[in-house]
Amino acid sequence: MKGNAIVGQSGGPTAVINSSIGGVYAEAKKLGAGKVYGMIHGIEGFMDDKILDLDDYLADEMGLELLKRTPSAFLGSCRYKLPALEGNEDVYEKIFAVMEKHDINYFFYAGGNDSMDTVKQLSDYAAAHNKKQLFIGVPKTIDNDLPITDHCPGYGSAAKYIATSLKEIIRDNESFGAKKPTICIVEIMGRNAGWLTAAAALAKGDDCTGVNAIYLPERVFDMDAFMEKVKTLAKEKSSVVIAVSEGIHVADGRYVCEIGREVAVDVFGHKQMSGTAVMLAEKIAAETGLKTRAIEFSTLQRAATHIASLTDINEAFASGAAAAKAADDGKTGMMVTLDRTSDSPYQCTTGIYDIHQIANVERKVPDEWITEDGTDIKDEYIRYASPLIQGELTPFWVNGTPRHLVRK
Amino acid sequence: MKGNAIVGQSGGPTAVINSSIGGVYAEAKKLGAGKVYGMIHGIEGFMDDKILDLDDYLADEMGLELLKRTPSAFLGSCRYKLPALEGNEDVYEKIFAVMEKHDINYFFYAGGNDSMDTVKQLSDYAAAHNKKQLFIGVPKTIDNDLPITDHCPGYGSAAKYIATSLKEIIRDNESFGAKKPTICIVEIMGRNAGWLTAAAALAKGDDCTGVNAIYLPERVFDMDAFMEKVKTLAKEKSSVVIAVSEGIHVADGRYVCEIGREVAVDVFGHKQMSGTAVMLAEKIAAETGLKTRAIEFSTLQRAATHIASLTDINEAFASGAAAAKAADDGKTGMMVTLDRTSDSPYQCTTGIYDIHQIANVERKVPDEWITEDGTDIKDEYIRYASPLIQGELTPFWVNGTPRHLVRK
Repeated sequence: MKGNAIVGQSGGPTAVINSSIGGVYAEAKKLGAGKVYGMIHGIEGFMDDKILDLDDYLADEMGLELLKRTPSAFLGSCRYKLPALEGNEDVYEKIFAVMEKHDINYFFYAGGNDSMDTVKQLSDYAAAHNKKQLFIGVPKTIDNDLPITDHCPGYGSAAKYIATSLKEIIRDNESFGAKKPTICIVEIMGRNAGWLTAAAALAKGDDCTGVNAIYLPERVFDMDAFMEKVKTLAKEKSSVVIAVSEGIHVADGRYVCEIGREVAVDVFGHKQMSGTAVMLAEKIAAETGLKTRAIEFSTLQRAATHIASLTDINEAFASGAAAAKAADDGKTGMMVTLDRTSDSPYQCTTGIYDIHQIANVERKVPDEWITEDGTDIKDEYIRYASPLIQGELTPFWVNGTPRHLVRK
Repeated sequence: MKGNAIVGQSGGPTAVINSSIGGVYAEAKKLGAGKVYGMIHGIEGFMDDKILDLDDYLADEMGLELLKRTPSAFLGSCRYKLPALEGNEDVYEKIFAVMEKHDINYFFYAGGNDSMDTVKQLSDYAAAHNKKQLFIGVPKTIDNDLPITDHCPGYGSAAKYIATSLKEIIRDNESFGAKKPTICIVEIMGRNAGWLTAAAALAKGDDCTGVNAIYLPERVFDMDAFMEKVKTLAKEKSSVVIAVSEGIHVADGRYVCEIGREVAVDVFGHKQMSGTAVMLAEKIAAETGLKTRAIEFSTLQRAATHIASLTDINEAFASGAAAAKAADDGKTGMMVTLDRTSDSPYQCTTGIYDIHQIANVERKVPDEWITEDGTDIKDEYIRYASPLIQGELTPFWVNGTPRHLVRK
């Protein structure tokens, strides 16, 4: 590598997005990069020239190991979508000016759909304006909804958190062997894609009966059928735990969490999901008189680095390293992918793919992996997801809690 | 010990209530007990003669270690309060008949306030009717509200979960360095006693700024002062995370979660708390236009055995063992206590105390440990609680999730 590199983080954090920047840093250094900078709060901070030198944190291997165990975005994140080029050339010129000021030739950006759009826009601009800088995307999203790649770094750890927490919740819910079961509704993230909610299927095993039903946003949610299912389960079981996606919606298009109330909208125009479990639990309680409980995993499912998947951490790191290698090879306008070569034993390598085929495209759970009645997930999903949650990386426990790396 | 023993679990589960029955089993066996039975679903199941032989699960040391790593109540729990003796002699006679049928001379019951009442009632009945059986209580409650004992098994693990999860949530909330902070309200269990919510103070450390305010139910909640505090914090900080107890209530006695809606009541007459964080988050959003987030730890704070405190596990086990020893010494109508002998280095031994001074008495966070304005916790609490969250017991990870012991 010639000159300096920079890496940024964008969008909702994951448990392993820091491992990705660790991979970029370690590999870029190995390949001869001068400085490897970090953008503070992604492209938004970068435009204001807010950067740091990763040597200050990661030159020591202990720093790199601590980074892998640090949740959320170490560099800070942003939710900033670059404006369309036409009429906004000043925004693009500003970004390239900052790059040139710091002799930055390589730009790495870890993020999901919206963030890959940033990589696409900048690489397109560079190509159109004969700029030398290279732009590579590093996949990151708990939602697992990026296309082309087999799966996304961040997903395995969220799935491991969901499976582990559900096993604990199911146990808790079973503890009262009452004549009438408590109906526990667990709400899991995923606006349009049900990957995270599908991970509820991973709770089932030799030592756990699993959840009793799973509802993904890929299928239209039928409230009457749901209520019938709950009533049937309540008769048969001494404990009922049901996983629902925050994004489930009824036939007229309304999200379940919107029924009976208004919801806010974020800067990307996405509705702020929340309250699906509460809505359903209250409806069940009102119609059946059964005791109900609503649980939302909320930000914990993307922040619980203390229980991250080692497979996920290693793949996130490898994705960052592969991005650095690709840029060193002169590639630009591409995203690193994870390419599975074998299910059992699980084997996976990194690849690289044209970002134009990826940005703004959303991949959903295949319809054939969902049971016909839309209340359960098939074994095809288990074969796909189980390898992604394997392994653990022990936190650095200090004074009773996991130690994290802090920006000075 | 002569003849057989039985142990039961009662009330809300904790991450370490199974370690307590492990301690009873191991010590009772050592002291020569014949069978050590377990009540299935506490006293309620016991009356119907539902018991199991713990040898079937714990005779192998591997079983005992797996039990320590199993969340919720392995034997099943119940929420059954014995009726007053007068007019209900048949209930008591039924219980003693089951004991006599199985030659059970020692009765151990792990639980909180309501469950200690069961031990009191049964030992009183035995004394009044010249019965030979001995009754010992084993403290258990995440609420930490039992009197006399320095703290309760179950509390340390819940506190460790709360501190660890809050560190992860704070990191996540900080990741967007927006001009306007997201206000995150985290709701923590504790109807009348704020011990669990106080554990939010343990998130603070060299690598974490901690939560920005803590509201316990020990103080009357002043909604106007709260809103002022939030507005001030929103001006000063780029991230605001506030911990509130589910049991906070306003001056007229209403719980905050009751404002504007009805809440259900359980068999002990306790109101079902939930929705405090949502209520406050919605109010803040409506009045300030700031982005808000409501998080409830819900049952996870009592079920997350994967992150239990080793100190807590060991003390729960020791409490069970001490109960067996006390019964072997001929004691009855007593509860095991944890007696701290030194803060630093932390040292703690088990004691034994008259259950009449314990049952139905609730211990709250000392007023002098709360700051004058009621929005923070003092260092006295940190000194008290920090030793209780130390240490970890690695789960037995099988196929990506922690393995649990299952009742056949």
